[in-house]
Amino acid sequence: MPGTQPKEAMNPKLIAAAYIDTWNEGDARKRGLLFDEHWTNDARYEDPLMQGEGVGAIGALADAVRERFPDFRFQLRGDANGHGRYVRLAWSLGPAGQVAPIEGSDVIELHNGRISRVIGFIDRAPTA
Amino acid sequence: MPGTQPKEAMNPKLIAAAYIDTWNEGDARKRGLLFDEHWTNDARYEDPLMQGEGVGAIGALADAVRERFPDFRFQLRGDANGHGRYVRLAWSLGPAGQVAPIEGSDVIELHNGRISRVIGFIDRAPTA
Repeated sequence: MPGTQPKEAMNPKLIAAAYIDTWNEGDARKRGLLFDEHWTNDARYEDPLMQGEGVGAIGALADAVRERFPDFRFQLRGDANGHGRYVRLAWSLGPAGQVAPIEGSDVIELHNGRISRVIGFIDRAPTA
Repeated sequence: MPGTQPKEAMNPKLIAAAYIDTWNEGDARKRGLLFDEHWTNDARYEDPLMQGEGVGAIGALADAVRERFPDFRFQLRGDANGHGRYVRLAWSLGPAGQVAPIEGSDVIELHNGRISRVIGFIDRAPTA
C-alpha cells in the first residue's frame, strides 16, 4: 500500500542491520535497547525450527541459538530490500571468518517502522 | 506453530502449483474456480509494483499482467517449500521456451489451507 508508510520502505538496509544486530547481541541489556528501538513489544517470529511471540520470547530464542552455537554469528548475505512495510534479507550463521554452515532468508513486516513480524526460512543447513 | 495446521505445511508444492496456475489462467471462469478452491475471498496481494485486496482485485492484477505481456507465462523456479502456515516459492515470467526476463519470490500465508495473503518480491527485472 504505497503512501501509507513511505518511511519504512526507504530503509530496508537499516532495518536488516538492526535485526541482525539483535540476534547477535549477547548482552541482555543492550539487546533490550535494540528491541525497544527497532521491534514492537508483541513482535512474532516464526521459522521452521522456532517460534516466539513477544520480544521476551524472541530474546530467549536468540539465547538458545547462542547457547547451541557459542562461536557463531549472524551475517547479512547480499543487500536487504523491501517495499511498503516489508523487508526481506538473507543471512548466514557460522563461525567468524569461516564458511557459514547455515543460511536462511527472512521476511520482516513493520508496524510504524518497527519489526512486528518475522517469517523465516532455512536455505541451507547441515543434513547431519 | 507446529501442530495447529499440519496439513498445510505438508503441501507447499500443491499450493505453489495452484498459485501459479491462478496467475496463468486466462479464462475468467476457470480462474474463478481456482480462486474458490485455493484462495480466501478476502486474500491480499502485495509486491513492489502491485497491490490487491480480494480475489476480484487480484484477478484484475493477473489480467493486467496478461495484457502487458500476452505471450508470457509464470513458471515455478526450483521447489516450493514451507512451514506452519507459510509457503515460499520462486517464479519466472517470460515467453514459453525462452529465457525469462522477470523473476521473483513470493511468500504465501494460508488460512484454513487457502491462500489468504501474498508478499511478493522481484528478484530480477529488465532495467530498461
